[in-house]
Amino acid sequence: MAAISEEYPPEFSDERGLALISDIVDWQINHGSLLKRIDTETQFPDDAPQCYPVGVTVFPTLFPREQFDRACGLQIIYNELYCAMAEDEHWIFETIRDMIPIDPLAAALWGIHEEVKKVGYAQKVSVGIFRSDYMLDAPGMEFPLRPGETFDGSLKQVELNTFSCSGATHANKAADMHRYLARTNAYDTGDDRQINISLDTLPRNNNIPSLSACLAAAHDAYGPKKSSVATDTAVLFVVQPNNFNIADERPLEYALWDRDPPVPAYRVDYPNDFLQYTTLTESRELLFHPPWLGSKCVEISVAYMRAGYEVHEYDTTGKEARLRIELSTAIKCPSLLAHICTFKRVQCALTSPGALEHFISPAKAALVRSTFVSMYPLDGSEAGFRARRLATDPELSRDYILKPSLEGGGHNIFGEDIPDFLASVPESKWGAYILMERIRSPSVSNVLLSSAGLDSGGVVSELGVFGTCLWWKGTEGRHCEMLLNSVGGWSFKTKHEDVNEMSVVKGYGCFDTPLLF
Amino acid sequence: MAAISEEYPPEFSDERGLALISDIVDWQINHGSLLKRIDTETQFPDDAPQCYPVGVTVFPTLFPREQFDRACGLQIIYNELYCAMAEDEHWIFETIRDMIPIDPLAAALWGIHEEVKKVGYAQKVSVGIFRSDYMLDAPGMEFPLRPGETFDGSLKQVELNTFSCSGATHANKAADMHRYLARTNAYDTGDDRQINISLDTLPRNNNIPSLSACLAAAHDAYGPKKSSVATDTAVLFVVQPNNFNIADERPLEYALWDRDPPVPAYRVDYPNDFLQYTTLTESRELLFHPPWLGSKCVEISVAYMRAGYEVHEYDTTGKEARLRIELSTAIKCPSLLAHICTFKRVQCALTSPGALEHFISPAKAALVRSTFVSMYPLDGSEAGFRARRLATDPELSRDYILKPSLEGGGHNIFGEDIPDFLASVPESKWGAYILMERIRSPSVSNVLLSSAGLDSGGVVSELGVFGTCLWWKGTEGRHCEMLLNSVGGWSFKTKHEDVNEMSVVKGYGCFDTPLLF
Repeated sequence: MAAISEEYPPEFSDERGLALISDIVDWQINHGSLLKRIDTETQFPDDAPQCYPVGVTVFPTLFPREQFDRACGLQIIYNELYCAMAEDEHWIFETIRDMIPIDPLAAALWGIHEEVKKVGYAQKVSVGIFRSDYMLDAPGMEFPLRPGETFDGSLKQVELNTFSCSGATHANKAADMHRYLARTNAYDTGDDRQINISLDTLPRNNNIPSLSACLAAAHDAYGPKKSSVATDTAVLFVVQPNNFNIADERPLEYALWDRDPPVPAYRVDYPNDFLQYTTLTESRELLFHPPWLGSKCVEISVAYMRAGYEVHEYDTTGKEARLRIELSTAIKCPSLLAHICTFKRVQCALTSPGALEHFISPAKAALVRSTFVSMYPLDGSEAGFRARRLATDPELSRDYILKPSLEGGGHNIFGEDIPDFLASVPESKWGAYILMERIRSPSVSNVLLSSAGLDSGGVVSELGVFGTCLWWKGTEGRHCEMLLNSVGGWSFKTKHEDVNEMSVVKGYGCFDTPLLF
Repeated sequence: MAAISEEYPPEFSDERGLALISDIVDWQINHGSLLKRIDTETQFPDDAPQCYPVGVTVFPTLFPREQFDRACGLQIIYNELYCAMAEDEHWIFETIRDMIPIDPLAAALWGIHEEVKKVGYAQKVSVGIFRSDYMLDAPGMEFPLRPGETFDGSLKQVELNTFSCSGATHANKAADMHRYLARTNAYDTGDDRQINISLDTLPRNNNIPSLSACLAAAHDAYGPKKSSVATDTAVLFVVQPNNFNIADERPLEYALWDRDPPVPAYRVDYPNDFLQYTTLTESRELLFHPPWLGSKCVEISVAYMRAGYEVHEYDTTGKEARLRIELSTAIKCPSLLAHICTFKRVQCALTSPGALEHFISPAKAALVRSTFVSMYPLDGSEAGFRARRLATDPELSRDYILKPSLEGGGHNIFGEDIPDFLASVPESKWGAYILMERIRSPSVSNVLLSSAGLDSGGVVSELGVFGTCLWWKGTEGRHCEMLLNSVGGWSFKTKHEDVNEMSVVKGYGCFDTPLLF
């Protein structure tokens, strides 16, 4: 689509703006596009539990269709790459071995892996719900493009999450909402010179059906129950206690129950309730028998991890809980080694020459590599020394971000703040960070609606593509055998351009839908 | 099903109870089983809008299957009866003429009717979404029944609502929720002596699809747009401003948009925004052109009234708005005369000998009459004098309820409070009340979960059956011709036995599902 107008989003009168916001809030309340206020829930039943709408953009945000399609298309290759990596214990160990002495999470996970290896893993099949996040690198560009101008930036990967990928449900609902608004003429300006927000320009999102289908496929792959004590097999959602983000997790459980035949799905808090309400049989089936199932005892087919990604979750109890999961015959989403592949240090290692070709064909490697930005470990290697020079120079550091080597957003240090920050950290701990080139987003505007109110202005978007896969170790020299490899759907998150962090549920950003052009 | 245990609902441990409540609250948040906090919304965008779960029962409440089926089966006859009444202007006028001088709502509505008659109604077709409410009359009985005991009470009508019937969506969702809980084994006690809560015992509810299908049928019956200015036809939800109950109304709009082809549905606040954003064409098409539709102007096919049932809504502006609706070619849900049929005085008139037979066959009349309790107007008639004697006697009044003659719950006076209340009202105004025999519910227990917290104990339930219909005036001596006549679905509301009022959204009761036995 050619650019038509230089103004986006359209200017609405106050009256029309309020009507649109009322439509949005009502839609969110009716469709569970909400966060739960945990401070009130913990006082229940004295106080009523409350909830409020998750942040969303009022309008969809402009994004080039070609780059959107490209990101979705790449996911099949990324799935294959990460499954292959997850089956290469030796490569993973070489990549993170320096981190183990200085990074307690790496140490905890690798320790559990070694513990399991003593008796051997009891399940060959693994299931993955991955999310690869991208931003557009197009410094100085502005959307909408001027007449005749074409997009000449590129799609760059921010990170790839292999563990506990959140936002799938919220993203699905945000897409449904923007499509609903477009369909009900809420964006219609009646002005041909304005950019048209229509169903053709707003991609569908099918995260909920596709992620639940992936868990169901893993459940089927597990087969019938082996334990005579169990009445049934079931998927277990291993979750954090006092969860305010139940509206992101629960719909996947509901979708499993809604399948025909239903896939039983239960949830348990990690690690205490998990330890209390599960047992391993002698042949290592994982049995789940909480008091709320009455006399029922189910055998867990799939352990879907939505907890266990933060270092504080690996105290003695946390380690024991994760060890029980890993020892069991349950199919893990994801496997422990696939979990470790989510570390920034692993992402960084993939940028080394030849690293990708170790796992995938040169043609696929070239496609993947084109989404990489420069990344350096802050270690004793040659690349590490170059990185230290960049990171400690107030001028050069501007183009970089310093990130902890672990999974999860946040805790990043930006540009000119890096030298001072590093000065405050003992040099022996620098190895726990990686330095990454900053991605320069094009300039684009929108209106954000969150619990902080309305905020108009320049925004930055991040496109995540969900991948779903099922695999086991390959034979005849192949790293892995893909039993299922699909694009799940996508998430699109947008924040004010001056805010660095992109966590919607923490209130820093909004779920959004790309307006493809 | 024979009674198995004398204990219902089952006793759950605290731990299991909390898990069940957490399941319920999460389900409600994810499915829009919520109320919007209007005090916070009006401060928006400074404060985030908030919402909280609507009251629901933790367990479904015992109810005899035969009586449930009977109530559903009667609805087709009730629909026919009320459509016939709505086409008999003479009968309606004779019934309410005494009220016009003393009741401002009756006066306002009849005045608008007379005004429209001067030019004539422009639309022959009317659409009805009715709800007939029942309670079980079974004094001294207790559920669950003892082994060998059978239910020997009866189903009695509380009232029939023809206007702005609420609760359909909440009731639909409560049924879905209790069915979800049953399906996920949340009620499973593993004890064969306990009453089994299974999908077979919990009826499905299809209010949302059936009510929206009825509005869509009316939309189709309207036909293509007549005005050249309009771009399209659409259903208009005429609603009260600052609505906290959007989760009951909005899903009907969404369901209309989700039809294939979509039925456009918009909403407007009554009466101010309605007057500002609509116009009547010379040939009385109702055009809707609010600022939030940009340059679009739609022709209203169906005006679905969710406002205009309270007397304060009929100031000069309110009267003007309702008159515009009634003058228009839009199909009204319901027609003005059908609205008047919701008055208690009309319900009371139907109990007079021969009244039912004026509208329906004797066989049907007998079925309907079997659900009636004694009702008396407090007027100068012979029945009125008998009623005055009952109502002013502290002893005799115990078995009665005094109700305002108008639609809507609330403002009722119970039993021994009646004589004192009447003493405070000038006798000339007594005609605005009717006296109704109290229905004595069987004794049954449940646990209620509302914003007030948890409450266990004896409860009273009210079954509402929704009827959907489309009709016009009959020919050849028939009152009306039914173009569509269906049972819509049902609502089931339960409150603490000591609370007289049954308004869930005001916090006095809970949405529930009958556990059929």
